[in-house]
Amino acid sequence: MKLWDKGIKVNDKVERFTVGKDREMDLYLAPFDVLGTMAHITMLESVGLLQKNELDQLLSELQNIYTTTLEGNFKIEDGIEDVHSQVEMMLTERLGDIGKKVHSGRSRNDQVLLDLKLFIRKKIEEVVEAVQDFFGALQTQSENYKDYLIPGYTHLQVAMPSSFGLWFGAYAESLTDDMQMLKAAWKITNQNPLGAAAGYGSSFPLNRQLTTSLLGFDNMNYNVVYAQMGRGKTEKNVAMALSSVAYTVGKFAMDACLYMSQNFGFLTLPGELTTGSSIMPHKKNPDVFELIRAKCNQIQALPESIGIITGNLPSGYFRDLQLIKENFLPAFDELISCLDLATFAVNNITIKKDVLQNEMYKYAFSVEEVNKLVLQGIPFRDAYKQIGKMIEDGAFDPEINVAHTHEGSIGNLCNQQVQQKMEGLIDSFNFEKVNKALKSLLELK
Amino acid sequence: MKLWDKGIKVNDKVERFTVGKDREMDLYLAPFDVLGTMAHITMLESVGLLQKNELDQLLSELQNIYTTTLEGNFKIEDGIEDVHSQVEMMLTERLGDIGKKVHSGRSRNDQVLLDLKLFIRKKIEEVVEAVQDFFGALQTQSENYKDYLIPGYTHLQVAMPSSFGLWFGAYAESLTDDMQMLKAAWKITNQNPLGAAAGYGSSFPLNRQLTTSLLGFDNMNYNVVYAQMGRGKTEKNVAMALSSVAYTVGKFAMDACLYMSQNFGFLTLPGELTTGSSIMPHKKNPDVFELIRAKCNQIQALPESIGIITGNLPSGYFRDLQLIKENFLPAFDELISCLDLATFAVNNITIKKDVLQNEMYKYAFSVEEVNKLVLQGIPFRDAYKQIGKMIEDGAFDPEINVAHTHEGSIGNLCNQQVQQKMEGLIDSFNFEKVNKALKSLLELK
Amino acid sequence: MKLWDKGIKVNDKVERFTVGKDREMDLYLAPFDVLGTMAHITMLESVGLLQKNELDQLLSELQNIYTTTLEGNFKIEDGIEDVHSQVEMMLTERLGDIGKKVHSGRSRNDQVLLDLKLFIRKKIEEVVEAVQDFFGALQTQSENYKDYLIPGYTHLQVAMPSSFGLWFGAYAESLTDDMQMLKAAWKITNQNPLGAAAGYGSSFPLNRQLTTSLLGFDNMNYNVVYAQMGRGKTEKNVAMALSSVAYTVGKFAMDACLYMSQNFGFLTLPGELTTGSSIMPHKKNPDVFELIRAKCNQIQALPESIGIITGNLPSGYFRDLQLIKENFLPAFDELISCLDLATFAVNNITIKKDVLQNEMYKYAFSVEEVNKLVLQGIPFRDAYKQIGKMIEDGAFDPEINVAHTHEGSIGNLCNQQVQQKMEGLIDSFNFEKVNKALKSLLELK
Amino acid sequence: MKLWDKGIKVNDKVERFTVGKDREMDLYLAPFDVLGTMAHITMLESVGLLQKNELDQLLSELQNIYTTTLEGNFKIEDGIEDVHSQVEMMLTERLGDIGKKVHSGRSRNDQVLLDLKLFIRKKIEEVVEAVQDFFGALQTQSENYKDYLIPGYTHLQVAMPSSFGLWFGAYAESLTDDMQMLKAAWKITNQNPLGAAAGYGSSFPLNRQLTTSLLGFDNMNYNVVYAQMGRGKTEKNVAMALSSVAYTVGKFAMDACLYMSQNFGFLTLPGELTTGSSIMPHKKNPDVFELIRAKCNQIQALPESIGIITGNLPSGYFRDLQLIKENFLPAFDELISCLDLATFAVNNITIKKDVLQNEMYKYAFSVEEVNKLVLQGIPFRDAYKQIGKMIEDGAFDPEINVAHTHEGSIGNLCNQQVQQKMEGLIDSFNFEKVNKALKSLLELK
Repeated sequence: MKLWDKGIKVNDKVERFTVGKDREMDLYLAPFDVLGTMAHITMLESVGLLQKNELDQLLSELQNIYTTTLEGNFKIEDGIEDVHSQVEMMLTERLGDIGKKVHSGRSRNDQVLLDLKLFIRKKIEEVVEAVQDFFGALQTQSENYKDYLIPGYTHLQVAMPSSFGLWFGAYAESLTDDMQMLKAAWKITNQNPLGAAAGYGSSFPLNRQLTTSLLGFDNMNYNVVYAQMGRGKTEKNVAMALSSVAYTVGKFAMDACLYMSQNFGFLTLPGELTTGSSIMPHKKNPDVFELIRAKCNQIQALPESIGIITGNLPSGYFRDLQLIKENFLPAFDELISCLDLATFAVNNITIKKDVLQNEMYKYAFSVEEVNKLVLQGIPFRDAYKQIGKMIEDGAFDPEINVAHTHEGSIGNLCNQQVQQKMEGLIDSFNFEKVNKALKSLLELK
Repeated sequence: MKLWDKGIKVNDKVERFTVGKDREMDLYLAPFDVLGTMAHITMLESVGLLQKNELDQLLSELQNIYTTTLEGNFKIEDGIEDVHSQVEMMLTERLGDIGKKVHSGRSRNDQVLLDLKLFIRKKIEEVVEAVQDFFGALQTQSENYKDYLIPGYTHLQVAMPSSFGLWFGAYAESLTDDMQMLKAAWKITNQNPLGAAAGYGSSFPLNRQLTTSLLGFDNMNYNVVYAQMGRGKTEKNVAMALSSVAYTVGKFAMDACLYMSQNFGFLTLPGELTTGSSIMPHKKNPDVFELIRAKCNQIQALPESIGIITGNLPSGYFRDLQLIKENFLPAFDELISCLDLATFAVNNITIKKDVLQNEMYKYAFSVEEVNKLVLQGIPFRDAYKQIGKMIEDGAFDPEINVAHTHEGSIGNLCNQQVQQKMEGLIDSFNFEKVNKALKSLLELK
Repeated sequence: MKLWDKGIKVNDKVERFTVGKDREMDLYLAPFDVLGTMAHITMLESVGLLQKNELDQLLSELQNIYTTTLEGNFKIEDGIEDVHSQVEMMLTERLGDIGKKVHSGRSRNDQVLLDLKLFIRKKIEEVVEAVQDFFGALQTQSENYKDYLIPGYTHLQVAMPSSFGLWFGAYAESLTDDMQMLKAAWKITNQNPLGAAAGYGSSFPLNRQLTTSLLGFDNMNYNVVYAQMGRGKTEKNVAMALSSVAYTVGKFAMDACLYMSQNFGFLTLPGELTTGSSIMPHKKNPDVFELIRAKCNQIQALPESIGIITGNLPSGYFRDLQLIKENFLPAFDELISCLDLATFAVNNITIKKDVLQNEMYKYAFSVEEVNKLVLQGIPFRDAYKQIGKMIEDGAFDPEINVAHTHEGSIGNLCNQQVQQKMEGLIDSFNFEKVNKALKSLLELK
Repeated sequence: MKLWDKGIKVNDKVERFTVGKDREMDLYLAPFDVLGTMAHITMLESVGLLQKNELDQLLSELQNIYTTTLEGNFKIEDGIEDVHSQVEMMLTERLGDIGKKVHSGRSRNDQVLLDLKLFIRKKIEEVVEAVQDFFGALQTQSENYKDYLIPGYTHLQVAMPSSFGLWFGAYAESLTDDMQMLKAAWKITNQNPLGAAAGYGSSFPLNRQLTTSLLGFDNMNYNVVYAQMGRGKTEKNVAMALSSVAYTVGKFAMDACLYMSQNFGFLTLPGELTTGSSIMPHKKNPDVFELIRAKCNQIQALPESIGIITGNLPSGYFRDLQLIKENFLPAFDELISCLDLATFAVNNITIKKDVLQNEMYKYAFSVEEVNKLVLQGIPFRDAYKQIGKMIEDGAFDPEINVAHTHEGSIGNLCNQQVQQKMEGLIDSFNFEKVNKALKSLLELK
């Protein structure tokens, strides 16, 4: 069935090619399509385009379909083009002509726009939760291991003393900046596009304020041409936010892979988190971190892979935009799985407590020795040269301890202040407002 | 001169290769390096690492150097490695040993981190101003031409009626979403990294709260390992925000190029904004829009071009990060020039007022006719088929007018509400707070 | 079952995460894994590491498995990690301890290297065939419509006369350059990596010349560290070649979408190759070309999406490389489907024969008029100015015909010479040599 | 001066914006523009569009200009738009009206197409030479150090024995595959576009075979629409070839950075090839390799940065293409500088000869021990388990030597065969033919 069937049969080859993976992808959107339709028809009734009793029947049937989607039993049947057609067909099968009325005043274009926004909102909430868990694990290990030193590297050369406390804590703080990007993505997403129809609005007297409120949106995409132009652009901006989180998680995984190498030996994972080799019986490989790294790299390629599709397209809908779904929709769950596994690994990781005992790392203390001279009144550049000469002469024998006290240094991690940053950011999303609105919508009769 | 000179001469070939364009790039950072040093030494004095009279001399000399940078007379001399070395050398030349003391408690790594942040803050402010101007021009033309219809396209096929009001207004609203990205970039940037030294902090009792306040930062990057890790990451996130603006401006330019083609003929630029051909005497080409489009595409490639450098690097400083400057620092001025030219072109553009008189566009009214039947009580799907048949039969002869009334539609553009969105966003940056702090810093004695 | 099972159970969450889509992806490789194993064990027997009767049993069983893969009945069972383990397990189930011997002297690392190369060879052959078909269709239409003029554009402004013959023919010639890239990809791929084991060779006296010859490779990747390093790099280079083809096909689709717009109206597709709108009854959309364009853009993003995974990884195997399969393996079929649909569309397309009758296009003849003056002896720059003035004065009234005669111009398309380029290139692949070798291998007893 | 000046002054702001860096970029093309013009006018004379004595004067003057370009004294004067205009203006200043005739039968579009192709040819030759040098250095060190073992890693975990011979040799062989890509780029480039004019050919009876032969091209881009379409596409394909070389060089640099870390300590550079830190007096940093890595990453981003500009543009010239020059033209010299520095560093590198004495690496011999059991007749999987158990029990004490003999293994590097591959490839470019043609052209009178 096609909503636009006019009696000309589309060639089978063309049909297969154009539908592609769309029916598979649309399953991600099913519950949100139902919610959007509930809001739309409630509005239609309010402006006189639907009778109250029609609305009641439709809402009741849509609640049934919604339950089906949550239970995983929703299917897009063979020959049905997409989720929107499937829902409309189910309504028409069950309620007759009334079912056909749900499409008044909208187009599949604004349906998919709306479905995507509702989907993204839900998924951003889940990403934020997974970020919070990873953040918690990192901060906990930062506190647990704040007294254990490791060498800090620049240019991958031993540079200065660092600590496990600093290392775990750094990635926690990195997530607070990622949250700023997620917040921007959320703000961009949380605006109602419904009413844009095919991108040029409708001659029906739609009440867009009402659907904005019913769906718990902060605001609306007013201009209908812009609402449509948001397709592709919203996904790209949201992908940038995911990419920011992936940057942090991926770099953490890179460090972990390095530190698990025998040449560093700073970290160990329990056997059940590693994998082996088909020919080398001694191997315990950090595949988990390698795959986190690679998946996070894939997610970082997402904005560009969207951009290459939208690039140089004029305004107005194009079928090209459909393909964005294939990489975009699954990306949230991919990122969440990376966050979950990283949290799991951080919670189970073992650190080496006496790393700095190794003679190799003594040069990490060269700045400490320079600074001691400075505190005795020697100008920095002169102290630098003096210690440099001692090193050249093989006469460098530093004390292996540090007494850093300033904010954010080894001795004063400020994890609590970082936690406050994070909490303030999470609160500002106000997920509750959205969830409350959707709950009310589902209870409409 | 090298700050790290230990008597071994670096090979000339290596020297040229490693310095690369760094001295050219560092000119972008010169005034900010001076500001950062002023804040740093004020703090050093407050914790007893500098005498009051030393501070006074240094501040006074730094004010002179600052003036030089503003006047465009600051140079990085031959043989001087970078801006940080140049400033330190100028101070030492003029004030002797006191000059050497400004480097206590910091590293070139956190200097460049800081310089970049101060530079980005300034440039984000300039981008926001240029966005505001473009926004104003678009909204003005949207109001000016709100009554002139054009066809709206989907699949580049004539679809439904649109208007110049909608078209100009859409791009104005698009900028409000871009502003959300700029805001995130601003929030990420507006945190103080100073005190991270080489990425592992310092044994000096630095007062990071004081430099945070002196430089007008909102907050600090607490964890010193994260502060350093922000190099590359901050640039990438900021580039994403620029990329979002470039998306809007570039797509506008694409539309403009299309609409200026004789096959559309919706828009004309005055002769002095077009260019000609060396062999075709009739040509008036929209090179301005083409170059805006191409430059905006380049800016959209920026996050990826940074990502390919930072990708899979472990934490800690690497010289690789230096190269990011080459594409990143000039990108702001590139984007601003695109915004300026787009504003200029929009202000000077001429529209065709009777576009829809062309018979070719009558099918744009098919939905209008369907909707009329729906309002007469015919179910949507049936009305759709009825009009479809009229078109097939060549019997379709619609009225060429529209009466769209809902929010964001042809008849109700809601430009004012969009303006409110924009103003709220711009206010939230609070540039004044930053500028006030920097003004006070420059007046310190 | 895991080949590397040592009695420690891998955590379920880790198991699911690390296996990912690998079992699904490995189905692409199954027949090639069998072929590789046949060559490997034939070689093992030749150097005394396998008995003749063991070889015979194994070959016979592998032929059965090969048939299963061709018939689509090969499955990777639950709990079996990958295709290599599955094949080894099937042999062991059927032949007992003999089955375990097939893994001597190799590693899964060089198995997957080899499988990928055999797979890529097969797929490049299929791509070349699909390119040939598209090339043929384009050349045919170029000849069919060589007498029908269209405007040629620069800056999307009407510029000079062109023709359907030129337009179709241009894309045919473009494919000849893409073939150069495919040829390079083929040469890089068609070298034997088997014997690299885990990337560092084997202490067994492997005869790599023999497997090179049995599998029909041109040459071998000698250095075992390089053979392993080829993983990821080969895929990236092959992806570049696919990307080159996609560039041509995608740009053709862009042109087609433009030319099918009512504002151009140069081309029409039959109804059964277009799709409609859910709200606009008049729409006949070129979704086929839009999806070809978008898919070709995705394929053009492939090299970068591989590069972001391999970027900055040191040499030696990493699990990250596994993820490349997910985008890379299906890309060939995606490209082939784009080529098929484009061929189908080109074969069914209708052109508008009197495009240039439209007054709008007369300026396309301005250079013709300039050139006429030049042929009368007027210097080019002066003639240019004279015609320019006529156009400004509204006095330009050119003849609407062209007489271009040089190679590659409207009147002398040189399609035959282009066809010779193409044929020479296709012959140089020498697919026959490869297919003959594999046929012999399958008949070994 | 503008070739297309028709008396309307272009707005200054527009002028600056559209010219951009074009005059700077065009200096790369100057000598090639002169060569192209010499070939073009020789052809014009042959078809009667220029007098013999005019040709002689023009050729003589062009030879002067060519010399100027080689001596670095060629300038594009203020107010002159590009290199093509500058050359034409110089001719007109010196020879009067005759100068104006050189533009007959061509357009700046095909001039820049041609200039780019001639430039690329020259630069590919230089890249091939630099690749050859790096190849030679790698092969030399591979032979020098073939007896010194290092651990081979998989997952960055100690895996199996490797050697410096293998390691250096691997990168040499990698360059042979890169050469396949350069060869494809060369073949694509080495075809004559001249005669395409603005992309639609010319009504003049141009003899394109003659210019093809005069300029030493292998063949021509026949179809004029394709010749023009090659702009952007050629650059992208050539960039892919550069990207392939950069992949090899960049990965080598990554390995080198890792192996120079104290945690590996396999390699050392002499002091004069390293750099220091402004605060850490002990640092000797591998900035050279880091910058090679980063620059090679930038080069790997080049195809995508071109693709984002050409993406979704229809056929026909657009000004967007001008911007490609900015990243593309300098990329060759960047790559060559990376190759040069890498060659220099490889020639000066010191290896650690007793790496494997470290106890940490003994597990690298686990497969050797498994294989010994296999050679005693124990099935592979059983031997694997037996050694695995010894390792778990702490009873693993292998012999630290290897006896790999097969092609490409530690004991049989096959560097000579790899060299043959390389030589065959280099010969196939046949640079001599091109250089001979250009030499003859310059001597024309």
